[in-house]
Amino acid sequence: MKLQLALDTLDIEESLKCLKLIHEYVDIIEVGTPMLIQYGLSAVRAIKSNFPNHQVLADAKIIDAGEFEASLCFDANADIVTVLGVSNSVTIANVLNVSRQRNKKVMVDLIEVKDVHSKVIELDEMGVDYICVHTAYDIQSDKREPLDELQTVNKAVRFSKSAIAGGIKLLTIEEVIKNNPEIIVVGGGILNHPDPVFAAKTFYKRIKEV
Amino acid sequence: MKLQLALDTLDIEESLKCLKLIHEYVDIIEVGTPMLIQYGLSAVRAIKSNFPNHQVLADAKIIDAGEFEASLCFDANADIVTVLGVSNSVTIANVLNVSRQRNKKVMVDLIEVKDVHSKVIELDEMGVDYICVHTAYDIQSDKREPLDELQTVNKAVRFSKSAIAGGIKLLTIEEVIKNNPEIIVVGGGILNHPDPVFAAKTFYKRIKEV
Repeated sequence: MKLQLALDTLDIEESLKCLKLIHEYVDIIEVGTPMLIQYGLSAVRAIKSNFPNHQVLADAKIIDAGEFEASLCFDANADIVTVLGVSNSVTIANVLNVSRQRNKKVMVDLIEVKDVHSKVIELDEMGVDYICVHTAYDIQSDKREPLDELQTVNKAVRFSKSAIAGGIKLLTIEEVIKNNPEIIVVGGGILNHPDPVFAAKTFYKRIKEV
Repeated sequence: MKLQLALDTLDIEESLKCLKLIHEYVDIIEVGTPMLIQYGLSAVRAIKSNFPNHQVLADAKIIDAGEFEASLCFDANADIVTVLGVSNSVTIANVLNVSRQRNKKVMVDLIEVKDVHSKVIELDEMGVDYICVHTAYDIQSDKREPLDELQTVNKAVRFSKSAIAGGIKLLTIEEVIKNNPEIIVVGGGILNHPDPVFAAKTFYKRIKEV
């Protein structure tokens, strides 16, 4: 089980400062979508060059021009790129092709996918590396539970690994761990905690005990 | 009818050079998704500051964190921001709210929306400014026709205006114009033409004759 830290609202300098304190408790560093919109791939380059031994994920949420956009992210030294599960299958296949050519990885974000079971079967057959159940930030106040979806993914996959994102906090980590995702994505649960170092260390230690 | 130029593959300097030659034939300058991924909102800032009398669109294709991501784009002086039609309605409403507060505009991209008619009715009632039918780059070789979708949009809307994007060239502009969109988005049809100035001028003059 791996811990992925999502950087969404910090600037590049703040992110690097924060990572200096907690990088040893993080497996994958995510340049989140808002950070990518704000700074572009310079954020990915800066983080990868400062933390070359970490995997860096570019949360580009690709929905078109799969080969071109994934190539841009990999050119900037991203190790993993995200593509939306609601994309056309051709786009997902194009992202996957370029990732295979370059020995990189692909995470499909299931946000707003309606028929999760069918989509997971398809994605698993295509050979995507990670399938991420994701409670949108905009609907987290609705308290919808992504854990059922995580179970659906884990039951359906033969090749792909599961990931889970969206509002995970120290209070909810035990429930998440029980459902056995390969990657747990945490953003505000660490970065908005009064003591981010404590939070990161606690998440990481708990995850690595599994 | 307006012409929107989509900048996808040029860098910022090349874009500014190109715009110097053709800006008078363009109504809306789009910072396309790949350019936004590559350079972030610095691209929007650079273009708006050099062409302050043009509307600048940030093709962020928002699918979550609608208020936050739209605010980032508007802070960078974008006049219009895009949100995906496949997003949760809460996200679209959040983008719309922040655009209203700041006197900006929202374009919804219908890429991969399955039930276009129902979605357009909903978006029109929400009061989105523009609804864009969009043939994904990755499936343009399938020759699917977005003109039927454009007709569906134009028949259903009472408030919103229509837009069309995806592979429009000088060869196909007449068919597009017949279907009466408010905005015609052209990228490669101008920028990959052997003579981009001629192409832009021809598109623009033809569109303004309508």
